[in-house]
Amino acid sequence: MTADPASETATGRGRGGRTARQRQRSQSQRAAALIAGVERRIPTYDLLSEEGLVALETAADVILQEVGIEFREDPEALRLWRAAGADVKGELVRFEPGLLRQILKTAPKSFVQHARNPARSVTIGGNQVIFAPAYGPPFVRDLEGGRRYGTLKDFENFVKLAYMIPWLHHSGGTICEPVDIPVNKRHLDMVSSHLRLTDKPFMGSVTAENRAEDSIEMARIVFGHEFVDRNCVILGNINANSPLVFDATMTNALRAYARANQAAVVVPFILGGAMGPVTTAGAIAQSLAETMAGCALTQLVRPGAPVIFGNFLSSMALRSGSPTFGTPEPALGSLVIGQLARRLELPLRCSGAFTSSKIADGQAMTESTVSMLSAVQCGANFILHAAGWLEGGLTMGYEKMILDADYCASLHTYMAGMSLDENQMALGAFREVGPGKHFFGCAHTLANYETAFWDSDTADNNSFEQWRDEGERDANQRANARWRRLLQEYQPPPLDPAIDEALTEFVTKRKNEKPDMWH
Amino acid sequence: MTADPASETATGRGRGGRTARQRQRSQSQRAAALIAGVERRIPTYDLLSEEGLVALETAADVILQEVGIEFREDPEALRLWRAAGADVKGELVRFEPGLLRQILKTAPKSFVQHARNPARSVTIGGNQVIFAPAYGPPFVRDLEGGRRYGTLKDFENFVKLAYMIPWLHHSGGTICEPVDIPVNKRHLDMVSSHLRLTDKPFMGSVTAENRAEDSIEMARIVFGHEFVDRNCVILGNINANSPLVFDATMTNALRAYARANQAAVVVPFILGGAMGPVTTAGAIAQSLAETMAGCALTQLVRPGAPVIFGNFLSSMALRSGSPTFGTPEPALGSLVIGQLARRLELPLRCSGAFTSSKIADGQAMTESTVSMLSAVQCGANFILHAAGWLEGGLTMGYEKMILDADYCASLHTYMAGMSLDENQMALGAFREVGPGKHFFGCAHTLANYETAFWDSDTADNNSFEQWRDEGERDANQRANARWRRLLQEYQPPPLDPAIDEALTEFVTKRKNEKPDMWH
Repeated sequence: MTADPASETATGRGRGGRTARQRQRSQSQRAAALIAGVERRIPTYDLLSEEGLVALETAADVILQEVGIEFREDPEALRLWRAAGADVKGELVRFEPGLLRQILKTAPKSFVQHARNPARSVTIGGNQVIFAPAYGPPFVRDLEGGRRYGTLKDFENFVKLAYMIPWLHHSGGTICEPVDIPVNKRHLDMVSSHLRLTDKPFMGSVTAENRAEDSIEMARIVFGHEFVDRNCVILGNINANSPLVFDATMTNALRAYARANQAAVVVPFILGGAMGPVTTAGAIAQSLAETMAGCALTQLVRPGAPVIFGNFLSSMALRSGSPTFGTPEPALGSLVIGQLARRLELPLRCSGAFTSSKIADGQAMTESTVSMLSAVQCGANFILHAAGWLEGGLTMGYEKMILDADYCASLHTYMAGMSLDENQMALGAFREVGPGKHFFGCAHTLANYETAFWDSDTADNNSFEQWRDEGERDANQRANARWRRLLQEYQPPPLDPAIDEALTEFVTKRKNEKPDMWH
Repeated sequence: MTADPASETATGRGRGGRTARQRQRSQSQRAAALIAGVERRIPTYDLLSEEGLVALETAADVILQEVGIEFREDPEALRLWRAAGADVKGELVRFEPGLLRQILKTAPKSFVQHARNPARSVTIGGNQVIFAPAYGPPFVRDLEGGRRYGTLKDFENFVKLAYMIPWLHHSGGTICEPVDIPVNKRHLDMVSSHLRLTDKPFMGSVTAENRAEDSIEMARIVFGHEFVDRNCVILGNINANSPLVFDATMTNALRAYARANQAAVVVPFILGGAMGPVTTAGAIAQSLAETMAGCALTQLVRPGAPVIFGNFLSSMALRSGSPTFGTPEPALGSLVIGQLARRLELPLRCSGAFTSSKIADGQAMTESTVSMLSAVQCGANFILHAAGWLEGGLTMGYEKMILDADYCASLHTYMAGMSLDENQMALGAFREVGPGKHFFGCAHTLANYETAFWDSDTADNNSFEQWRDEGERDANQRANARWRRLLQEYQPPPLDPAIDEALTEFVTKRKNEKPDMWH
């Protein structure tokens, strides 16, 4: 089939020239283009009726009231709960129905996370959707090097790639663990990279209270103390120790972010049958209970502090007992969690490009697509792990990051929905062309061609013969070429030398204060 | 992570034994299991409001009234239109708004397509969803043999695989073109295979009126003349020659199916910017106009004949002008088409596992997943191309068929939705386990474990180390092993020897009547 409108025109200066420029843009000049989030203009996909949602909320209330949640080794958290009217016995806290919802009324429905480049600041909440790369993998993988422990060099590469990819609006946090840096010091290098190598918004450390404090302090060096006290400039991702426990490491970090007026993302990790019941409805009720408690704690620390309702559901392979991802149960679960988060009027973090595959093969991309699309359809606002996840989160993949980011690009067009204006309806084109003729050269096609369809950066849509003659490259090989080119083309965004120096001074000072810890 | 409940129990006869049996089932004994369609218990995902749908219907009415549709070289079709009150000038037919909807009132909302094994008969319409393999590719591909022209041997293999895969409810039609058989005789071998090698419902030929008649006649040999006259036992897939044309080959076949009371699937093929406008709303309006006209024609031939509203939207790569699939525009388009088909109260055929990738790589599976999930979410009833499609429909892939079928399996669980009964809510489990403990061995987990989660037949969810030690096989390699095993295990379903003989006699007679045609 020959359907290239460029070939239908007489001169290379006409359509061919524009098409060539378009191609140029889509290949590299679009990189690092400025897309500060995307607005979801399509409806959410609501699975349950009001009755079902109330049943889940009631179940969460029963768990909170009868079973309760333990806040371990954190007397300050227990003091706050006691003062708020919760039933505290030892480290176990129980909640009357309605108490947490009342406390959560001070949490903002939506907030701005400021980036050091104000044009990249993002709104988290409402119909806004923010994509961020994967978080936490100790391993990295690329096509040539295979799987290996991540290093600071890898971490920096991923920060640069997230900066270059316009469809990722956020730099994320621990994109991979830089395991060549001591455990108690790597947060300094990671936050430093997020502040220097990119100007997108980012996440700080949560693995110890002092590391959370360091992260926020580094943000203050860049944004200024007063600005940070009044605005959100950093996120911290706080995991519950499901089932029904928050340990002191997490609540200390949570309180550090909240008292600095920075946003905690509160996320249970429930692998059904292990850290929660094996049935999805029960896991959702548990997730709701845990997240409400964690989010409410931020409001006791500082009413009005931004907080994100987080969710992470997975399923299990019956044969091996391994966690599975991109399966139907968590996909449905996300849709329900979205409904519940909207009823709480809290911004939602949900799902991501999840897979248990070790490589970016067909399994990985089916699972990731199912998982990501559910996150978008459920109305999630902050989608962490949107690019790069492999192997249940143990590995960050270079090629996977590119393929996932390409799907993120596609989701921008998907979320824009369908316009039904006069031009889109094209009745004039039908009158012009009539039955049995082609639309290639008609005025309507020429006027709309360049903006008509989303165009992938990595898909191969060419003929078999062209693909064969170009070496039969698969998606992974194309993605490999793409991330290598993006890294080559990378240029850091400008940073005030005085700030740069102050960051270096802070990092050096902190690194010299303590001996290295390696685990 | 060790989360295998089997390891938590004392004896191999307990959970371990059941898990082993479960594994056995999922590997092979489940093959050819009897699943006659799946009920969609989740809501459809409705993109547009009433106002938007009316705007599209009005646009379709304008196209039908002002531009019209050509029915080429088929005087009988023109006679039927004239008698029905349409405005016929030469071969151009124009329709007053409302005329086609009025004619379509006699078409059934839902009908049963009978299989020769009654337990495999499927209902097409309502909330029922039927998956069928890809249709039409001249090429086939497998991991060892690469891409080559399809043969009757390949065709038979695909019929056998579709029979062995329980998640495909339907044997489809031209799963691949058997190009080693003359063009004017291959329908005899294909229909013969569908009637002998499987007992699932199937599709007949449409490439010439006499081939459609032959297909129906062969069904009569198996089902009996009277039964066929009263019941649907075969489908014919009728393509419009978009834009706004039906040629005689197609309408002659359509009329053959309709007068035999068999179901036509009426499907425009609109590649935006070529066979229709480059804007999605316009393409949908056109699709609605063409499909309504084609479906209505069946009702003029035989009021009450079953008919399926078909849809096929694609997009275009700006850089090459090639068709693209699994992109956001047709995904949104499917959602809207679903809404429009429901308003017409016709069963819907929509989308499938579409991709432009030449191989079953990450691109293929992202695109196919997006495309399939839209078909399910839009409420499609008959999903042709649900497994095997590669290269824009030019190639049928052995491994792709397995990977797609695995996603079809997953969609069975997805469409079942979420139960919120007392057992699913698991409040007793929370009371039993309490904060900070694992759910592995609790009574609720043991009672629900085997039915808790969907389990893939091809995904690798094992640890990296296990996957590495087993040879680092990717999804394609696992799929390759699976289809080879399924073909080895294949046993044909029983067929009355007298019927078998009568089919042979019919095929031999027909083959001897005419010289071979090779194109």
